[in-house]
Amino acid sequence: MSVILQVDFSYNGPFEELMSKAMTPLAESIAKEPGLIWKIWTENKVTQEAGGIYLFDKEDNAKAYLKMHSKRLMAAGVPKVNAKIFYVNQELSMLTKAFNV
Amino acid sequence: MSVILQVDFSYNGPFEELMSKAMTPLAESIAKEPGLIWKIWTENKVTQEAGGIYLFDKEDNAKAYLKMHSKRLMAAGVPKVNAKIFYVNQELSMLTKAFNV
Repeated sequence: MSVILQVDFSYNGPFEELMSKAMTPLAESIAKEPGLIWKIWTENKVTQEAGGIYLFDKEDNAKAYLKMHSKRLMAAGVPKVNAKIFYVNQELSMLTKAFNV
Repeated sequence: MSVILQVDFSYNGPFEELMSKAMTPLAESIAKEPGLIWKIWTENKVTQEAGGIYLFDKEDNAKAYLKMHSKRLMAAGVPKVNAKIFYVNQELSMLTKAFNV
């Protein structure tokens, strides 16, 4: 059963194109993580936050990734990582046009 | 520019199939909200939480929806609604296999 991992944290940039450039190697690495179906990269220059919405194939893979990624973020200076794991309600999601979860 | 709205809150159920049944009319209504591209319905029986990940066409529509939905949730007894709005980094999201954001 697929799960959503939502992660956000305080972040001072870079944003937008500069973020894309800076984070490309990390994104290429994340794409290969066990069980990752997709990650949406999120950013907000106004609130100075960033994060990700991830879909994993199962909860164990989401938890293992979160453990590793939290360590990586904290090593990069992020003081606190907000994270939650959820199951997807497939039937309701289909009704609201999210067909590939 | 599309935006992600992430919402979560304490929730005591129903979960899974019973949640689908109870929330079907609400989902049919949410599907018609201005600017909604999709909503993924999230739930977690263990932590007693639920929420949604929404993709909207633009920030104004996400903000208007959030204002209305927060009132609706609070009227239904939810004490506190956690919500954040983010822009999508399209280029990085493509690299991590999220192609339709």
